[in-house]
This record gives sequence, C-alpha cells and structure tokens, in this order.
Amino acid sequence: MRRQGPPGASAQVSLGALFAPRTVAIVGASPDSAKWGHILSQRALASPGDRTILLINRHAREVLDQPTYVSPRAAAAAHDVRIDLAVLCVPASGFVAAVTDAVAAGARAIVGITAGLSEAGTEGARIEAEALAVARDAGAVLVGPNCLGVVDTSTGLQLAHATLPAGDVAVLSQSGNLVLDLAGLLAERGLGVSRFVSLGNQADLGLVDFLYACIDHNGTRAVAVYTEDVVDGRGFLDAARALRDAGKPLVLLAPGRTEAAIRSAVSHTGSLTSAAMVLDAACAAVGARRVEHPTQLADQLEALRSPRRMSGDRVAVLTDGGGHGAVAADALAAAGMRTPELTGELVTELRAALWARAAVANPVDLAGAGEQDAASYARGVALLLPSDQVDGVLLTGFFGGYSTEQSNLTEPELAAVAQVAATVAAQSKPLVVHTIYPDSPSAEALRAAGIPVYRDVDRACAVLAGLVEHESAGLAEPLPVNAAPVTDTSYDAARALFVEAGIAFPAAVSVTDAAGFEAALADLRFPIAMKATGRSHKSEGGGVVLGVADRDAARTAYDDLMARLAPPTVSVEEMADLTDGVELIVGSVRDPKFGPVVLVGLGGIFAEVLADTACAIAPTSPAAARRLLLSLRGAPLLLGARGRPAVDLDALAELVARVSLLASAHPEVAELELNPVLAGQSGVLALDARVVLEVAQVPLVETVDPGVLGREDAVIERP
Amino acid sequence: MRRQGPPGASAQVSLGALFAPRTVAIVGASPDSAKWGHILSQRALASPGDRTILLINRHAREVLDQPTYVSPRAAAAAHDVRIDLAVLCVPASGFVAAVTDAVAAGARAIVGITAGLSEAGTEGARIEAEALAVARDAGAVLVGPNCLGVVDTSTGLQLAHATLPAGDVAVLSQSGNLVLDLAGLLAERGLGVSRFVSLGNQADLGLVDFLYACIDHNGTRAVAVYTEDVVDGRGFLDAARALRDAGKPLVLLAPGRTEAAIRSAVSHTGSLTSAAMVLDAACAAVGARRVEHPTQLADQLEALRSPRRMSGDRVAVLTDGGGHGAVAADALAAAGMRTPELTGELVTELRAALWARAAVANPVDLAGAGEQDAASYARGVALLLPSDQVDGVLLTGFFGGYSTEQSNLTEPELAAVAQVAATVAAQSKPLVVHTIYPDSPSAEALRAAGIPVYRDVDRACAVLAGLVEHESAGLAEPLPVNAAPVTDTSYDAARALFVEAGIAFPAAVSVTDAAGFEAALADLRFPIAMKATGRSHKSEGGGVVLGVADRDAARTAYDDLMARLAPPTVSVEEMADLTDGVELIVGSVRDPKFGPVVLVGLGGIFAEVLADTACAIAPTSPAAARRLLLSLRGAPLLLGARGRPAVDLDALAELVARVSLLASAHPEVAELELNPVLAGQSGVLALDARVVLEVAQVPLVETVDPGVLGREDAVIERP
Repeated sequence: MRRQGPPGASAQVSLGALFAPRTVAIVGASPDSAKWGHILSQRALASPGDRTILLINRHAREVLDQPTYVSPRAAAAAHDVRIDLAVLCVPASGFVAAVTDAVAAGARAIVGITAGLSEAGTEGARIEAEALAVARDAGAVLVGPNCLGVVDTSTGLQLAHATLPAGDVAVLSQSGNLVLDLAGLLAERGLGVSRFVSLGNQADLGLVDFLYACIDHNGTRAVAVYTEDVVDGRGFLDAARALRDAGKPLVLLAPGRTEAAIRSAVSHTGSLTSAAMVLDAACAAVGARRVEHPTQLADQLEALRSPRRMSGDRVAVLTDGGGHGAVAADALAAAGMRTPELTGELVTELRAALWARAAVANPVDLAGAGEQDAASYARGVALLLPSDQVDGVLLTGFFGGYSTEQSNLTEPELAAVAQVAATVAAQSKPLVVHTIYPDSPSAEALRAAGIPVYRDVDRACAVLAGLVEHESAGLAEPLPVNAAPVTDTSYDAARALFVEAGIAFPAAVSVTDAAGFEAALADLRFPIAMKATGRSHKSEGGGVVLGVADRDAARTAYDDLMARLAPPTVSVEEMADLTDGVELIVGSVRDPKFGPVVLVGLGGIFAEVLADTACAIAPTSPAAARRLLLSLRGAPLLLGARGRPAVDLDALAELVARVSLLASAHPEVAELELNPVLAGQSGVLALDARVVLEVAQVPLVETVDPGVLGREDAVIERP
Repeated sequence: MRRQGPPGASAQVSLGALFAPRTVAIVGASPDSAKWGHILSQRALASPGDRTILLINRHAREVLDQPTYVSPRAAAAAHDVRIDLAVLCVPASGFVAAVTDAVAAGARAIVGITAGLSEAGTEGARIEAEALAVARDAGAVLVGPNCLGVVDTSTGLQLAHATLPAGDVAVLSQSGNLVLDLAGLLAERGLGVSRFVSLGNQADLGLVDFLYACIDHNGTRAVAVYTEDVVDGRGFLDAARALRDAGKPLVLLAPGRTEAAIRSAVSHTGSLTSAAMVLDAACAAVGARRVEHPTQLADQLEALRSPRRMSGDRVAVLTDGGGHGAVAADALAAAGMRTPELTGELVTELRAALWARAAVANPVDLAGAGEQDAASYARGVALLLPSDQVDGVLLTGFFGGYSTEQSNLTEPELAAVAQVAATVAAQSKPLVVHTIYPDSPSAEALRAAGIPVYRDVDRACAVLAGLVEHESAGLAEPLPVNAAPVTDTSYDAARALFVEAGIAFPAAVSVTDAAGFEAALADLRFPIAMKATGRSHKSEGGGVVLGVADRDAARTAYDDLMARLAPPTVSVEEMADLTDGVELIVGSVRDPKFGPVVLVGLGGIFAEVLADTACAIAPTSPAAARRLLLSLRGAPLLLGARGRPAVDLDALAELVARVSLLASAHPEVAELELNPVLAGQSGVLALDARVVLEVAQVPLVETVDPGVLGREDAVIERP
C-alpha cells in the first residue's frame, strides 16, 4: 500500500482525479442490470453534473441508451479528452489490461470494482500486484480493488453501490452493507455524506491516505470509519491526530472484540494484549471515538458537531419526573459516568430558582415546577451547566410535551428552549436531552440549536460518554529519539537498561564466583534473593531463591544453586519488603500494527487468570498512565484496602510512563517486562527485568511462570 | 398494607368494584382545568361506557357541563344507586371525611388521588392511617393514596392522568411519567394496556395484590412493573412465581443500582449485599426479567409474547453482509451471549443449502446468496434454528430490502418470510431479526408471524438475552420446614449447626482446660489451629493461632492464649492443607424485604475489596448455586489456574445450596457465615463458622477482619 505522508502536491493531484474528475470512464459498462458495470453506469449517468461519462464495453454497442466504446483510449480519442477517472468493472482476468488501457488514456485515478484479486488467493494477488505496478509507473492511484466505488457529494460524484445523501461526514469503509446502514441513519439525523470510499483490498490507497485527504477537504467536517483491520496502525495514529488537530472528529466502528487475538509471545506481557485492546488504546491516544454499532456511530457523529465536551464524568440530571431521574442515574452509571450529589451554594440557588417541592440533590427533580412555569427548565440548566461541580447535563423526561399537547403552553415552552439554547451557546459543556416527545416543536428547536435529543435514555447517555475528552489524552510529547539499539538481553543488561531509564530496583550485585559472592554479602542487607542469570529464564528449575535470611543460609543456597545449575552469573539482591505493597506487571509489547504498546496489570492472578490488564499506545504521559492504572478492575487495591495504605500512585504512573518512553526509543525491542513491580506507600520498585528482541532472535522457550509473584510460583523459598 | 394471599372470593369482589364499577363518583370534581378533579372528571366522562359517572363538588354546581352533588351520599340517593368506586381528589385535610362519605354511599373501592399523606410526614401519615381504618371497617379497598388513578381498558375504565391505549399488558407503576413513556412505546409496537394502576403510597392495596389480580384476569397476558422499592419482597416472589406458572411474563424496571445500599451488619456477609443485587436475585429466582430503561421494557414485553425461549446462550448469526455479522457477534457478546463456531454435519448442510461463497462458521454469511435466491435466507434459518448447537438465531443485515427497493424481488422475499415463519412456528427457539429496513413489507410480515424485528442490533441482542430461560432457575423445592430456633451463637454451636446441615469441617475438639487440651493433642493430626472461642469474635486480639506444628509449640501457644485472653473454651482443630485450594466466603443474610439470601464470593480481596460477590434468594438449588459461583469475576480460579487443578464445583455448589436451606429453615437467624470455605480438587471444607441472630441481640462489636484468609489478617502465626 502506498504510504502517503502528510498531504503533498503530488497527492493532491492524484486525489483530484479521483474525487473531482472531469471525465469518467466506466470500463465494463453492462446492459445486464445485475452487474456492477450496469449499476455504476446508472449512477454515473444519473448525476453527471458537468462531467463527461464514457461507457466502455467491448461487445455491447449501447448501454442504458448510451453509446459505448471498445476501450478507454478509443473513448478518449473520440471525445478528444483525457480520462481522469476509470472505474473498472471487469473480470479479474482482464484487470491488468484494463488498468493498462486506462492509464494510457490518461487516467490518474482508478477505482477497481473487480473482485477475485488478492482477497481470493495467490493468483489474484499476482494480478493485483501487476496491475498496481502499471498504475504506479504511470503515476496513477488505485482504489480497491474489490471495492464498491466512491462518492463525493461536493463534486456531485456518485459512483458507488448506493446513492448517498449529501452532507459533511466522510465515510471510509471496508463494508458496503454498513454504508447503506449508516447512510440511512445519517439521513434520519439530517446529516449526510461528503465523501464515501469503499476501501476494498487497499492495494494502493488505503485508510490512512483517505484520512489525510479529509484534513484539507473543506466539505468534510467529521469522519466515520468502518474497518475490520487497521493495517497501518502508526499511520492511522498520525493521521487521526492530524484530524483531531484540524478539529474534525473521527468515529470508528471496528468489530472484532470476540475474536481470539491473543498473540503468542515469549514474555507474559506479550500474551496479555489483544487486538481489540490495542485498538481501544489507539483511539484513546488520538481522541478518536470507538463505537459498537452503526446507530451509535451516527449518534456520535451528530453530537460531535457541537464543540462542547465533558472534561470529566460528572453529570447533573435535570428531570420533570422522579422515575425518569432514577432511570437516568442508573443509565449514566452503566455508561461509565457519575451523578455526584450537588452541594453548597448551587443547591441553595437551585431551590430558589425552582420551587420548594423540587428535589435538588442530583437528580434535580422539578417535581411539577415545569408545568407551572416552563422557564424553570431553563433556570435549572442555567444554574447547572456552568457549575464547577458538573461536566455536563442530561435533561430527561417529557420536555416538549406542552408544545405537543397543550397549545397554550407551547409559547412558554419554546421560550424556555430559546433560553436553554442561549445558556448552552455561552459555555463549553454539553447538554443532552432525553424526552418522550422527540418529534415535538420544542425538540426540533433544541436540535436546531445544536442540542442532541433522544427518545431513549441509553442513547443519550452513550452520546454523553462520547463527549468526554480528557485533557491528558494523547501520546506523550515529544516522541523520544531512538536510542542506541539493545543487543544484550541478559538479566543484568535488562536491569541496566531500565535503571538508565530511571526505574528503581533493589540494590543488587552480579557475581561470577564465590569470592564475588562473599563480597556481595558484605554489601547487601538481609534478607536477600539470588537469581541464576545468564540463562533464558531464571525461574526454570529453581533458578530463583528468595528470602535468604543470613550468611549461612546464603552460602548454603549459593552452593546448591551452583551445583544444580552452574549459572555463569548470579545476581544477589536485597529483598524488598513485600508486606504492604501491591505487586503489578508493567511492560510493553511492539504491536505489529501500532508499534510499542505499554501494558499494566495487577500481579499474578489478576493479570494472568482474570485478564485484568490495560494498555496504552506508547509513549504515554504520567497522567494518562495514572488513568490506565485506575481503570483496572483490581484498582481498589492500589487505593488502599484491608488495612493497607494506598500505593504511591504518582510514582507508579511515572514508572509506567518511563517504560513507555523506553519502548518508544527502542523499535528493535519486541517486549519489555517488569514483573513484578512492587508499589508501596512511598515509592515503587521493580523486582525483576526482562527484554526480548525480535522473536526470531530469541531461542524458543516455553513460557514459564514468571518472576516472583506470591508464594504460588515455582521458586525455592529458604526461611 | 393489606397482605393479600392467593386470590380469594373476598378479594375478587373488592377488585371488581375497582376495575369494573357500575357507578363511579369523582369526589372533588373541579372546574379548574389544572386540577386532578377536573382531569379525571374529563377522563371519566369521555368514556363512560354504560356506567354512571357522578361528580361531587361542595361548591360548584356544574363541572364540564355536568350537574354536581354535594356529597357521594347525595349523588347516590339522587340516582338511587350504590357508588362502587369513589375517586378522591380532595385536599389531605378532607381525606378522612371523603372516605367516610364514600363508603357510606356504598363504595367498595376508593382511589386516593389526594397527596400530602404518608409521603409528606407524620401528620399526613396519621390522616392516611385513619382513612384506611375507615375503609377497612367498611370492607372497602383503597388504592394509593397519592396516586394518579387506574385504568381498565377491558371494562372501558379510564381514570388516570393519561388515556392509555387498549391492549393486554398490565402496568403497575410507582411513577406516573414513566407510564406515559411506556404507553407510547407499547403503542409503537402495536401493544397496549389492559390495566394500569398507579400504586401511590400503597397504604392498602399494593403491588403484590395487583400482581395476584393479574393472574386470573383474562385480559392480561403480561405484566410490566415500575418500582423504586419492592416493599413486600416475599409476597412479590410468591406472586411472581404464580404469574410465571400462569404463563404471564413479568418485566420489571426498578432503578436504584447507583444508590449506596450496603447494609450495616455484624458479619462480612451482611455487608456484601446491596438492594440492587438482591432484587436481581429475586427476579432470577422467579423468572421475572429486570430491565434498565423503558424501551427495553417495551421490547421485552413484545418479544415475550411468543412462547419461544433460549435454554442457553448460544446464538447463530445469519447475515447477508460480513460487516453486519461482525458487528452482531460483538453485540451478542456484550449482551452476555456467545456465537460458537458451528461444526460437523451442520456446516456441510449449510454450505450445500447456501452457496460456495457463503461463510458458515458463525456468523453464517450468505455473501450474496440472498440476492440470487431469497429462499436461501429461509434455508439458512431452517438449518440453524433446530440445530442442537444453537439456542437461538439472530438474522442481521438488510433483509427486507428487496420488498422495499426492487419490486420484482418482493414476492420471493415474502415467500421466504413465509418459510421462515413456518420454521419458527414448528419449534421452540427464538429467531430475532435486525434489519436496516424495519418498515418494509417483509419486516411487517415477520412481525405478524411473531418474529421480533429491530432497526438497531443492540436492541435485538438485548431481547435475545431476555429470552434466555435456564431450566434450573427458581427456588429450590420444596421449601424446608422451619427447624428449632437457634439460640446459641457460640462458635461451637455454630459449627454444630452447620455440621448438622451436612457441611464438612476439619476435625476439631473443644477444650476447657489443660487436661482436655492434652487429650485433644493426642487425637488430632498436626499442624493444628487454636481458636479462643466463647467470645464475640475470635480474631480480636490474637485469638486465633494457626500452623502449630508440634506438641511443644502447641503447649506454648495454649499457655500464651490462656494467659492473654483466658477464654472459656478453646477449639483445637486440624488445619486443612491450603496449598491447592481456593478460599471462598459463603453465607446468608436475611434481607428485610426478600427474606434469606445466600451469598458467595472469592475470599479476601475479591469479596471485600473488589465487591466480587453474587447472591441468590434462598433456598437455591445446587444447579443454580453452580451458576452463581461461575458468575463471579474470580470464577476462573475455580476452574483451575496457574498450575492448580479445578475445584470440586459440584461439592461447592452443594455446600452453597445447603447453607441456603439452613438459612431458609431458620427465620430467626439474621446472618450465617462460613468464612473461609476451602474448595479443593476433591471436596470442600468450611474452616470457620458464624451465626448471628437479630442484630439487637448481639452486643455491638466493630467489624474486624474475619477468619483466616491469607496472611494479611490479624492472627498470630506460629511456625
């Protein structure tokens, strides 16, 4: 696939031929109504604008009452034009010839509808590669092949399986059916499509190229992506960040959470990530929203048009009925947000603005005040939205009912809408409305003011969740410069690498003989641990001895270790006091698509048995690392439990951030692992270290129980 | 509140006056359009049927062009009738008098719209109690007060805040607004209301009474409940079970998951349940569905009309587009179901029935076969639905598109619908459809055949989840007979109680002096534990000593224990081998509403810090207990992890079931606790036992770290 960096002159010329062609050739135009060559001819002829549409068919002399030509060159010659865009609807066997003819007729953009290519097997892949070479030699770009076409409503180009409604959302999709789905949902919301590209096999232009193209396309305000495989992860990250910086929201539907995607890896870190987790992390890193189904995609696209965002998860619920308020509070919690109890001045002001019957804890229940005076809705919003106790407001219940049902209350209700709209416009937090009257005049007026309105409260809550934007989201900046490559993966070298990166370990001495061992005993405080190093993994066959209490025990253990394993080196280490600490696993893995990914998990059972891990794209900031740690199901242990104090979360987050920086600076490293990290009240210590280069470079060893977590592990304990 | 047992003659007479009155009096009928006395008069007059509507107003001579009467008696006399039903819309200060007048005029049913009663404070409660006494003395039933009316569309009775569409769903609600919401949602689905009761304060008739009334009401096929507090939990359980046995689904919307409802309790068991968890357990025990918002309520009511159910969680996805199939698989997983890979003959048959391009693993992707031949949809359903690899089928994509868009394909598509409907009708598993054409002729035909159709795939999945019915759901039968009440809560008595119930403990001897101690040492195997018993909680102040390895250590520990604590008795026990076992907490708490509830959790951190517990209404069967254990987040530990074997899950489930039976047989016991239970490969052992009677009977002690979990607890360990 062509890797297209930031948009440049050559790229723009190519995509101009694709999205704004003056002359389009449909190659394989067909009289057979079931064929793509017919459907796309129909689409092209139905909205030609001021472009020339040329139908190419070797055999049929006429298609859809239009004359045909035997080849693109013949057509171009007959009209004395160059063909800008050729849409190829020919069988795979004719694909290379069709591409050749098209570029000879001047085509600088080719859309390959043809299937049976690389998606079908090796012969198809060969054809595809050959056709791609022809196109590139001629300086032409190729979309697909095996795709369903392109649309650009801003230039009136409709060359896809369905005619799409015009609007400002770019849709880049690996699925044709889902585009029909999404187009309908967008239309229901008064939205439409600026550009649609069916990505197909992405032999040349791919998702990343089209993301970049959206940045400068004035007609595109937001981007929707459907993908089952983000092929170029790092490219995706860069393009998505550029889109975010350009103020254009990106919403991604990427199913595949249920696919078993646990990678095989040498260390445990590697085996603890899944493709779905990494994609979540990628979206979080660049401010893209990931959704689970098309309705959610459309809802988010609609809501993100407004610039208002939640900087935290605290929502005030304003309702005209206690039942709706209670249901909404639960729905917000289910969507990951909170309804904190309101306090202080705000409560006093609410009570004064509403009436005595109103409940003002949160939910704030008008309890009929709205029926008496529609303006009370507006006063409630005006007090809640700007409050520093609140990140966003959900209005739930039957607002809009009066403009529907009792005509003498329509005006006051619409006046209240105007006041609400003014409040919202004057600040930066979102208001989202759930009402049982979503088609009322008041609801229409709210939408017209950019305030989303939903019939179903769970939809309203999902949208609010999508409007949360953490300040500290995103990749840490600046990206580290690549450091000198790691070549030595021994335990000592791994420790040194991490120590240099600013990570603290217990004191340790690496010894190669008995004399060195004695000297080490003099320097270190008991109890100590001893690790047979210089091997592929220490704990195989009892290569780790813990809890050695005094010199006599140490000597006995050393002799035993040397006798059993004869390791080239032994690392003699002070033992950290495990009593009050919490053990974690912190590491990184180089994801083949997204590059380095940092991973955290509570130690032992949590990470390995319960799959309680979390990951972030590296490098990650301490603030984002902190959120990552707190997202673990086992996070309560970090905050203190069962008489233990809370761990030093700042130090732990700093360690995670440093590991992520280290991973980013070493593209040659496949996996890093600190397992365990001991987090205590006043700091964190790494108790073990591991570096894995390219898997091919490491002798295959069976994954064994790592490190020293708990007492269940395969280690020898000497009391 | 009147406790109404199974429906009896007296009850039926009372509710006849309520739901099928021949004469209705609106007391406090008002010319003021904002008042309930106006609104309800309007409702009553709008649909009188053949009943007599009498308006009562002391002052106004006319309301809504109808003559008024100064009292119910006056009205009754004027018409020479008895008033069956009186609807009271008077101020609280006039409530008692109004009730008195009404019953004197013959009323056997009273609906109290009047507010400001028990919900408002002590004075209101006093008035309410007085009015209730008057009604009961006269043999009349009271609805509310502080309610919004009643409706019975089968008798044409519309006496509520909104006119509700006729149908066969009974709606019993503590919220008026939510009824408007639900009524609209039901109407959209072609459903309606048989009866609506606004429950109000439930001073007399309550939710349970109305549930029973639904059982024999032919006009009611299903029941929807909105409640914020199930006051009479056991009554609810009995009534709900009776409804289930009558084949009438019950769907419950009961917000309040976010409310802090952790009860204060003496033991840990008591502190580990919440009201929301217990209500979930109650619904599970009686086959009621609990939903989270009104749309889900309406969807479930619609889908439950068909008798088809999923007996497990395995769903086959049939799709005409890969994208939709992938999205659906994720959505099913999110809703708690699985899409297992299909195998064997079924796969062969599918391939033959569809075409070569079809993917048949699950999702089953027609990949265009449907476009070629609409009957392939039907063939797919016909193979999948009856398969024993499948509990239900989800069809997702754009089925219906041909009856919408390409008229020459409408007939084949409708023919396919007919085949699908025939397949579904011939068996007992559900088919649910998601389509982007939910308003197409084909979709209408599917619905007409009782097959639910949704525009949004997550709605389709939520409905499938609601159609899951486990065979072993429900309370264990028969209910145990109450046993002789427990009075002794000492450790020894607690152990004996559990032992008698069939629960295994390590061997133990209770000693009162040194001689007894020596004798015990001769009988037991080392290592042993010693517990200072006869105190409120043993582990206070080091009253538990573990891991005593030999006689010398034992004697030393015993002397120390006696010196420090001088306990009346000491329990000397063999120590179980903790090496490969998993520790759990198993107990019961007597919920004030629902009675005995059995609770399980993984030991220590899991239950206490991570709130990983699960509960079920007691008594529970071993099969249901097994499911309960597997629902824990920590369940993977039970199934074997990190080199440990799986525990004996059958034995563990049996223990849980026995604890639940014990709890059910002892209503005088507030809490039971086995903490920890040690589950091993070949059996389970309880390692500690506790019984708590009424909290008032137990001296208040601070909750301390219980039992002997892990090494973090406050015990003295003697190596």
